[in-house]
Amino acid sequence: MNDKKWIKAEDVAKLAGVSRSAVSRAFTPGASVSPKTRAKVQAAAEALGYQVNIIARTMNTGSSNFIGIITSGFDNPFRSKLLAPLIHQLALHGFMPLLMNADDPQQLAPSLKHLLSYHVAGVIITSGAPPLELAEEYLARKIPVTLINRHAELPGCDRVSSDNALGGKLAAELLHAGQCRDVGFIGENRDNFSTRQRYEGFIHHASGLAVTAHFCETGGYQSGFAAARRLAAERPGLQALFCATDMLAIGAMDGLRADNPAAVLPAIIGFDDIPQAEWQPYQLTTIQQDTTLLAYHAVEMLVSRIAKFNQPSRHREVAVKLIIRNSAK
Amino acid sequence: MNDKKWIKAEDVAKLAGVSRSAVSRAFTPGASVSPKTRAKVQAAAEALGYQVNIIARTMNTGSSNFIGIITSGFDNPFRSKLLAPLIHQLALHGFMPLLMNADDPQQLAPSLKHLLSYHVAGVIITSGAPPLELAEEYLARKIPVTLINRHAELPGCDRVSSDNALGGKLAAELLHAGQCRDVGFIGENRDNFSTRQRYEGFIHHASGLAVTAHFCETGGYQSGFAAARRLAAERPGLQALFCATDMLAIGAMDGLRADNPAAVLPAIIGFDDIPQAEWQPYQLTTIQQDTTLLAYHAVEMLVSRIAKFNQPSRHREVAVKLIIRNSAK
Repeated sequence: MNDKKWIKAEDVAKLAGVSRSAVSRAFTPGASVSPKTRAKVQAAAEALGYQVNIIARTMNTGSSNFIGIITSGFDNPFRSKLLAPLIHQLALHGFMPLLMNADDPQQLAPSLKHLLSYHVAGVIITSGAPPLELAEEYLARKIPVTLINRHAELPGCDRVSSDNALGGKLAAELLHAGQCRDVGFIGENRDNFSTRQRYEGFIHHASGLAVTAHFCETGGYQSGFAAARRLAAERPGLQALFCATDMLAIGAMDGLRADNPAAVLPAIIGFDDIPQAEWQPYQLTTIQQDTTLLAYHAVEMLVSRIAKFNQPSRHREVAVKLIIRNSAK
Repeated sequence: MNDKKWIKAEDVAKLAGVSRSAVSRAFTPGASVSPKTRAKVQAAAEALGYQVNIIARTMNTGSSNFIGIITSGFDNPFRSKLLAPLIHQLALHGFMPLLMNADDPQQLAPSLKHLLSYHVAGVIITSGAPPLELAEEYLARKIPVTLINRHAELPGCDRVSSDNALGGKLAAELLHAGQCRDVGFIGENRDNFSTRQRYEGFIHHASGLAVTAHFCETGGYQSGFAAARRLAAERPGLQALFCATDMLAIGAMDGLRADNPAAVLPAIIGFDDIPQAEWQPYQLTTIQQDTTLLAYHAVEMLVSRIAKFNQPSRHREVAVKLIIRNSAK
């Protein structure tokens, strides 16, 4: 593979009639170089098809522009919705994401280990519970770790999450206003951070409501489908249902209509606002997470900690918003 | 950032009591090193928390293990379904994907340019038409480019696609068997490679069927929704509908039911087999693309061309499969 023709900075310097270090400076944001030199370097680079060698820069400066993103479930529409603004925000800061798929929670630890080989400048975890031991190894190496919608009390670890308690409150208020009394809740398992916070926020404002909660082993459409059928069988008078994710809510609606597509459903509220929530058979009222703002804060905190590692841990909460569609109003 | 504590290969060599090059060999797949030395190196690496420095290896060998993946639309369920096996297959070969989002076709060229800075070993394009000029720049540098479900006649450029013509044929045969005569087709725009091949395969086997085709500006749910309503208004006797993607088909079903949720729909066939095709309101009969096999062939061809660049261009087609659900049988 050594026959590949990579244009070197030296070639650009020669053609532009400037020094090798002038070429470096011309391609380093903020470095001191005259406009005239910069123009000469750019013209020569363009003519030769030169690209900055980021690998060499990483070797020379000791700091890489790779950021690991630990995610899971590309078929989870909410995760996909979060991924695009994350990659966009990282690009604005000149960072390149290294995406590690941790569909299986067992993959999380090897993924984090593997990312160390790339001398990542930081890591964003959007899925799974970070193994404390490994997170500590990162922090010992002064590699910032930022969590999105996850929990961990680690010094030097920043996190951003949606205001789940507010979401639970908004759902409870809507049901109160709709005179619902006999109410169900469907969540992922109790260990799931988001489910727990949404449930607690809901219950806290649910005085006067009789709530039957059902926690599933996993999230997703099939779980919602089965859980709603079970709930409806146990509680024939069910007036409303709050689900911890849109996927659970969509599955629940289909489960309740499985035997009778024209059945009148209880009021149903989801959480996330995935694209499918708008689809005709659902028109799901939901608590919208602001993925753009979640991505913005995650990257902003990560970048500021890359610049200055020793800062107190930060936790930011992003407001959620009730989106009223037909499924509950 | 120079205060970060990266363990060096020298530190491992010292602790293990072996040479620096023995440490390198112990971490290079296939390199010659005695089992005893390897065990000593591994024990020392484990004790120190050493990770292979892939950046340094890239500098030293001139070959990186980065593979660019140009994709778009993380909210496109088919693309998401393809991404997981692609990343998995790359990992099996020790490659790390650099994901470039080209939602906007204008982003494709800058993304390809940008990837050159990382000295990528190869690129996989799953979206958009690769700009010929840039693809040629890649090939001139002997960086392999592999296309999935895309078309380009470029020497040295490999591609893998689903057998779209077979898919069109399977759809036509099902409609023939169901005695349908008055038939609609909904596709993305005519420039879209997959739409065109699926349409041609369908038409080729549609003798005896009266086909009204509708091509949308873009793909997606809303396009299918609107196109189906227009088709149904033009052709009140429509008996069946073949859509070039599942997203178009799902949108079409909802469009046809928008005014009357209990309406009896024409037979509807999609293409892709995304997770939502199984959902209760759709139970979509569809032509399934084998994403695992598409990913396998894409990576296999890429890896073999990284090892030996000068080979004739290859094109592999992956068989598709008719999945019968309720929407057409």
